[in-house]
Amino acid sequence: MDCDVLVIGAGILGMSTAYHVKLANPGSRVVVVDWFGGPGQGNSAKSEGGFRNLFTSETNFLLADSTIDWMLHLEGELGHHIGVSRIGYLFLLSEEQYSGQRGAWDRIGGRAEMRVLDRGELEERIPALVTRFEEDEEAELLGLRDVDYGVLGVKCGAVDADALTRAYEELFLGLGGEVRYGTEVTGLVLKPEMELEIPGEPFVWQDALIRGAETSGGVIEAETTVVAAGVWSSRLMDPIGVDSHMRPKKRQIFAFKDPRLEPLFHVEGLNEFGTMPLTVLPKSNVLFRPEMSEGSVWMACADDLGRGFSLEDDPQAEEGYYTDDVYHVLSKYFPCFGDVRPMNSWAGHYAINGFDELPVVKSVPGMIYVGAASGSGIMKCDAIGRVAAALHAGKEEAELFGGRRFRVSDLGIHQRRAERETLVI
Amino acid sequence: MDCDVLVIGAGILGMSTAYHVKLANPGSRVVVVDWFGGPGQGNSAKSEGGFRNLFTSETNFLLADSTIDWMLHLEGELGHHIGVSRIGYLFLLSEEQYSGQRGAWDRIGGRAEMRVLDRGELEERIPALVTRFEEDEEAELLGLRDVDYGVLGVKCGAVDADALTRAYEELFLGLGGEVRYGTEVTGLVLKPEMELEIPGEPFVWQDALIRGAETSGGVIEAETTVVAAGVWSSRLMDPIGVDSHMRPKKRQIFAFKDPRLEPLFHVEGLNEFGTMPLTVLPKSNVLFRPEMSEGSVWMACADDLGRGFSLEDDPQAEEGYYTDDVYHVLSKYFPCFGDVRPMNSWAGHYAINGFDELPVVKSVPGMIYVGAASGSGIMKCDAIGRVAAALHAGKEEAELFGGRRFRVSDLGIHQRRAERETLVI
Repeated sequence: MDCDVLVIGAGILGMSTAYHVKLANPGSRVVVVDWFGGPGQGNSAKSEGGFRNLFTSETNFLLADSTIDWMLHLEGELGHHIGVSRIGYLFLLSEEQYSGQRGAWDRIGGRAEMRVLDRGELEERIPALVTRFEEDEEAELLGLRDVDYGVLGVKCGAVDADALTRAYEELFLGLGGEVRYGTEVTGLVLKPEMELEIPGEPFVWQDALIRGAETSGGVIEAETTVVAAGVWSSRLMDPIGVDSHMRPKKRQIFAFKDPRLEPLFHVEGLNEFGTMPLTVLPKSNVLFRPEMSEGSVWMACADDLGRGFSLEDDPQAEEGYYTDDVYHVLSKYFPCFGDVRPMNSWAGHYAINGFDELPVVKSVPGMIYVGAASGSGIMKCDAIGRVAAALHAGKEEAELFGGRRFRVSDLGIHQRRAERETLVI
Repeated sequence: MDCDVLVIGAGILGMSTAYHVKLANPGSRVVVVDWFGGPGQGNSAKSEGGFRNLFTSETNFLLADSTIDWMLHLEGELGHHIGVSRIGYLFLLSEEQYSGQRGAWDRIGGRAEMRVLDRGELEERIPALVTRFEEDEEAELLGLRDVDYGVLGVKCGAVDADALTRAYEELFLGLGGEVRYGTEVTGLVLKPEMELEIPGEPFVWQDALIRGAETSGGVIEAETTVVAAGVWSSRLMDPIGVDSHMRPKKRQIFAFKDPRLEPLFHVEGLNEFGTMPLTVLPKSNVLFRPEMSEGSVWMACADDLGRGFSLEDDPQAEEGYYTDDVYHVLSKYFPCFGDVRPMNSWAGHYAINGFDELPVVKSVPGMIYVGAASGSGIMKCDAIGRVAAALHAGKEEAELFGGRRFRVSDLGIHQRRAERETLVI
C-alpha cells in the first residue's frame, strides 16, 4: 500500500478533507494529488467567494455557520490571511418575495444574525439603488420587481477562496501531509477484496473495492481513496458505476473597476466597511459584491433553465452574456452600472446536485466521495471536510468547529436528511 | 401550436403517459414521437419483463401493485395479449439475508401475497436447487451463501414488455392519439413566455419554458412537452440544464433452451404453471425465469460496482460476462445449467436514479419529465403514467388503477417522498 488515504483533488473540499483526515490520524500517510500545479486551481479559486449562514434548512445552516466560525478563527486566531470580510449578504426582495419566505425568515431569525430593512431604510442607506419602476416600460418588459425589503445577513460576506485553499494546504503540510501537483488521475483502481490473481478480476461474484488510482505518475495504492475532484469526479466514477450525484453547470464572473461605481463603496450602516454587502437582486438571481482588496465589484448570475449541463475544457465568460442577459437588469436597479464595461471576466463550473443542492459525502467500498456541493462548497468547506473525516473514521457524528454535532449520514445517500432549502440562488 | 401534448419516446413510460393524458383529455391533440420504427424498441422490449409487488417502501408497493392489477385487467377483461404469467417471484436467501430483512417481511406480509418457505420445503419442491455447500472449496471461493429461506411473491411474475407497450399504443390510438415513428428529436425548444422577437431569446431575464421539440420532421410546437426518452433523456435535457436524475447502466440478458433445463419446468406448488418462479439467487443479484411462450429460460444479473455508467449506441451482451461472471454462481445453485450455453443474448440500459432508485415525474415550465425508473419502469408503468397525467392536469393526487390514491409530488423533486427501499436487486 503506497498510502493510507489518497485524496484526488486539491480543491477546497479535497484539501479540507485531507487536513481533517490527517489531523485525526497524525501517524497515517495522507497523499493529495491534483493535475493542476497548485491548490484550488480547478474551480475553487474561480469562485465568487461569497459566504452566508442565511439558509432555511438546518443542514445548510450548520454546515455554513460553523464554517464561517472556522474561517474567522483561521484568520483571527491562527493568523492565516484568507481575506475574510464580513461585508454582509443582502437579499433585495419584493413584497411578494418577502412574504413568500415568511416561514424562512422566522426560522433563520432565531439562529442567524439577520436584519430586515424596509424600503425607506434601503432608500436612505443606498441612494444608488432604484426601488420603484412605476411607468418604466423597459422595467416592465424586463419583468423587474420593485424592491420592498432587504434581508441582511450580518454574519456573511466574502473570502479569498484561493487563499483559503492554500491555508488548508499549509495546515495539511504542517502535519506532514503530502501533495503531488501536476499529477493526472486517469482512473480508479478496482480490486477484489480477496485477490485470486486471475486475469479479469474483479468478477461480479467477487466483493470489490477501490484500492487507489492510476495516475500519470504511476499507480498509487491506498487503503482509502477520497474522490474530491469536483466537476471532474464523474470522469473517474462513471467508469466504475458510482454516481457522483452532480452535473456541471457553467458560472461566469464579471469584474468592474470604474469611478462610476464609487457609490457602492460609500454605504453607511450595512457593514463595518461602509460598502454595499454582497447583494442579490430580486430578479434573475443576479448578484454582485465589492472586492475589497482591489476596489472592484464582482458580478455573477445563477442562471438556471436554459443554461445547459456541460463541462468545458477551458470555460470563458461569454461576451454577450453580460450585455444581453444581465446588464439591463443590473443597471435598472443600480443605474451606476450604466455604460460601465467589465474590466475582467472568467468562468468555471458548479457541481450541481439536482435533487437537493446539498453536498454529498458518501462511502463506497474503499472509497469516500465528497462533492456535488452545488456552488456552496467554499462556504461549507470546513464542515464538509469534518464530515468526510468522520465518515472515514467510521463515526456516526462529526464535531463541527465550535463543538456542534452533525450526523454523518445526513450527507450520505441512503439515510440522507431530506430538507428543502427555500433560500436558493 | 401543433399539438397540446408532445410525448417524446414511445417506450413503455411514454406510451402509458400518452394514453393516460389522452384519456383524461379526449379532445386534446396528443402526439408521440420516437426515432425507432415502433413502440418500445429502445429498452422496453429488451427488458427481462419480471414484475413484483414485493417492495418494502410504500411508494414502490403502490406503484407496482396497482400496475399488476392493471395488467391483469388489461389481459383478462380487456383481452389484450400481453403475456402476463403469474409465475411468482422467489428470493432465495441465506439465514443472514433473511433475518436482515425481517422488518421488510413484516411490512410486505401485511399487504402483498407473500409466502415464506424454509429449506426443507425448498429442497422438496425444487430438487434442482443446491442449498448447502459444505466442504465445497469452489463455492467458498465464490463466496456463495447457503440457501435457508425462500420468500415467494405470489402476485408476481413476468409480462411481455413489448406486447404491453403495444397494448398501450393500441389504446392510445383508439382514443385518437397520434404516433410518429422514425422521427428523431434533436433538441427541445426553449422559448420566452412572452416573445419579443429579439434574436437570442430567451434571455436570462425572461421567464422561459419548453415549447416543443426540434425533430427530423421539423419543429413540433406543443403546449406541454413530455420527455420520456429513457436513457436518452439526458441528451435532450442536459443542453437546457434540466436534470434527468439518471445515469445509464448496461444490462444483459442471456436466453437458454436446453433439455437439461427441463427440471426448471417441473416444479410443483410454487405457481399454477408448475415451473420455477422468477428466481433471485442469494449471490451477485443473479436471477432467471422461465419464458413460458418459448420454453426457454432468461437469465440476467444486476451487477453494480464495476459496471460503469455509459450509453452504448448498439449494446451487446458480452461473451465473457456469462462465462466468467455469472456461470459459476448460477451452476452451483442450479447444476442443471452445467455446460449449457446461451442460445441467445441481448443487452440494453437501465436508467438508474442513484439517489433512491425510484422513478421521477417532475414538471419544468412547459414540460414534464418521466423517467429514471431504474429498471423497474415496466412493472410500475401504469401507475407512473397516471401520476404523470395527474401532474399534467395540475392535480395533487393521482388515482391508480383500482382506486388507490397517490400523491403526485411523491415522485417529484422538491417534496419527494424519501423512503429507503430495502429490497433492491
